[in-house]
Amino acid sequence: MPVNLSPPDPKSLLPVKGVTLGVAEANIRKPNRKDLLLIRLDDGARVAGVFTQNRFCAAPVVVARQHLTMLDPDATIRALMVNTGCANAGTGKEGIAAARQTCSGIAGLLGCSSAQVLPFSTGVIMEPLPVERIMAGLPACTADLRENNWLAAAQAIMTTDTVAKAVSRRVSIGGADITITGIAKGAGMIHPNMATMLGFVATDAHVSLPLVRAAVAYAAKHSFNCITVDGDTSTNDSFILVATGKAQMPEIDDAKSSGFTAFRDGVTGVAAQLAQAIIRDGEGATKFITIRVEGGRNDDECGRIAYAIAHSPLVKTAFFASDPNLGRILAAVGYAGVADLNVEKVDLYLDDVLVAKSGGRHPAYEEADGQRVMRQSEITVRVVLNRGTASATVWTCDLSHDYVSINADYRS
Amino acid sequence: MPVNLSPPDPKSLLPVKGVTLGVAEANIRKPNRKDLLLIRLDDGARVAGVFTQNRFCAAPVVVARQHLTMLDPDATIRALMVNTGCANAGTGKEGIAAARQTCSGIAGLLGCSSAQVLPFSTGVIMEPLPVERIMAGLPACTADLRENNWLAAAQAIMTTDTVAKAVSRRVSIGGADITITGIAKGAGMIHPNMATMLGFVATDAHVSLPLVRAAVAYAAKHSFNCITVDGDTSTNDSFILVATGKAQMPEIDDAKSSGFTAFRDGVTGVAAQLAQAIIRDGEGATKFITIRVEGGRNDDECGRIAYAIAHSPLVKTAFFASDPNLGRILAAVGYAGVADLNVEKVDLYLDDVLVAKSGGRHPAYEEADGQRVMRQSEITVRVVLNRGTASATVWTCDLSHDYVSINADYRS
Repeated sequence: MPVNLSPPDPKSLLPVKGVTLGVAEANIRKPNRKDLLLIRLDDGARVAGVFTQNRFCAAPVVVARQHLTMLDPDATIRALMVNTGCANAGTGKEGIAAARQTCSGIAGLLGCSSAQVLPFSTGVIMEPLPVERIMAGLPACTADLRENNWLAAAQAIMTTDTVAKAVSRRVSIGGADITITGIAKGAGMIHPNMATMLGFVATDAHVSLPLVRAAVAYAAKHSFNCITVDGDTSTNDSFILVATGKAQMPEIDDAKSSGFTAFRDGVTGVAAQLAQAIIRDGEGATKFITIRVEGGRNDDECGRIAYAIAHSPLVKTAFFASDPNLGRILAAVGYAGVADLNVEKVDLYLDDVLVAKSGGRHPAYEEADGQRVMRQSEITVRVVLNRGTASATVWTCDLSHDYVSINADYRS
Repeated sequence: MPVNLSPPDPKSLLPVKGVTLGVAEANIRKPNRKDLLLIRLDDGARVAGVFTQNRFCAAPVVVARQHLTMLDPDATIRALMVNTGCANAGTGKEGIAAARQTCSGIAGLLGCSSAQVLPFSTGVIMEPLPVERIMAGLPACTADLRENNWLAAAQAIMTTDTVAKAVSRRVSIGGADITITGIAKGAGMIHPNMATMLGFVATDAHVSLPLVRAAVAYAAKHSFNCITVDGDTSTNDSFILVATGKAQMPEIDDAKSSGFTAFRDGVTGVAAQLAQAIIRDGEGATKFITIRVEGGRNDDECGRIAYAIAHSPLVKTAFFASDPNLGRILAAVGYAGVADLNVEKVDLYLDDVLVAKSGGRHPAYEEADGQRVMRQSEITVRVVLNRGTASATVWTCDLSHDYVSINADYRS
């Protein structure tokens, strides 16, 4: 059961001028489900992305990164293709060839070069990509291409997700209204390092390519890079930002302008909402936990501590049980790898409850107060280091029986 | 259900001259169970230890470390006290005072100074130590002191352990037979960093103090520091080696002598058997997994990769399900943080089965072969990096429903 997360209202999802989407049932792994998505972009779109830091990155990540960086300056990306059911990772040179073949197939259908196509895959690792099924499914995708198809697109990229993830918002920039719409998928193998499993955000804003790149990096850092379900960084993480430039507005090309800040924050807001939706729908999740570490010397040490707490199976099972066994949080702070941390300065809050003061249980803390907060479906853990001004926030979920069930049964 | 681990045969446990042990039911957390252990040492024993690297180390760890390093050169450690039910961690200055108070109580009973006593605690974090109950239980411990009491000692330090862990062996050194007997406890919050939850090994060998220290560090590195259940480094990890010097033999005082090597390897053998027993009895464990990473440039990168695999909840649930979803292992290799790893050189074996060759699925690999190995209760994962000669071994267990149940219910 996802935590306070409903399927998106179709009416809330706004089309983005210059973007059409089509889906198909290609029977890639299982029958009778949408498992293939084609996103077609009008000529001139500016596209930037960030990808997994996993050394075993998937073949489509290798190819997409190449196409984004080696594209002829006069050409632009014309299509994104996403398949579920097979990650095309750990597949060696055959996997790269398979990803290229799907790009060529799409180039033939849309009349562009294969370097103008970005491939994405998600699903089981170390199994060969069923290229023929994808090829056979592509004509149905092109026949289905339309502007108002974001919900179907979000559904087509789901794997163990139980709820489709899609978000739109409008942002006003210097009198022009722009639209930002995004979709994402992911529920397990979630500890993105540059991006999530898959996230795609499109806007009709008119923004220079360097600033599209700056915005995607900033948004990833403040959204998908702040979440973890199980600490497993996927082989296929990709987060792509498309700016079609179709809105009636002057081009944003100054990183210091208020227009760029508004654009960047709008994109980041959509990305953060999608990233949080991934945690709310985390495998087996029953609680949505915000971990905030404050008063550190630098961002890095705050992040280490936040992730140590977020990854601790003992902390996560205590949340599942609504058990205020909060010493486990202090233990995780202690082993996070901050070598000179003075634990006698550390304070711990659970929502508004001061649990530990100066490294030890606060005299006024009563277990009933901790119990009250632990029963909630949304909880904030706040650790105050009292040694500086840096901070970090991580969003995570608890560890439940269903996480084990889902991942013990994933392939069957 | 522990994995291929039986309770120790009482007859197999050999007394160590100069060491007596006594246990009691002190009602520290729960009634009707042995929860207090006193180990008395004859004058002249050489004692060394290694402790948790957790910054939130427990009060008894602080005090034991002080007593070991600040002891008057003419005095020796005379007693070790262990309580379960309360870790006395995250308890601030009151916790330190409480640990010192128990040392004084024992010093009064045994007629030594409190600096000659080492305190150890294990149990729930961030709750005050019930000093009065410990004080009230100590006379029963001293009344119970005897040489042939190792099994009761192993039972008295159990928490979520389902099987007591105790091992003896005899080693012949230059014609003299020495005895090494050890006990340990631990099943969860297991990712020791210098030592396990609690391990105590005693021998009657006659060894200089610097070499006792060298042996305990070496043994920890090759035993307790090679295991992980859940990646949570405890606040209370302690591993103590006692050499009473009661055996009829010349003192071992040369680190390059064959006698020291035999002694060190004997201690390491006992420690490794205890460490592996902790994994076999890991919370919810159904499988014992050995992860061996070979062909690395240095030990550090091999260890990082081995621990990334051992900590991955996705890998651990696949083992629980006996599902050869082995791409998850490649993903963990990829995100282990070895920045320049060339994945196209990586081979993966499951026992004797070559699963992946040169970074991709081996053409001859058949899922039936992977399935056969995954069904076993003992499995070796071997990752060959093909870039050097270093290696690392980590022992771990799978992640099952019972791990979640045990840790969701631990305090109740």
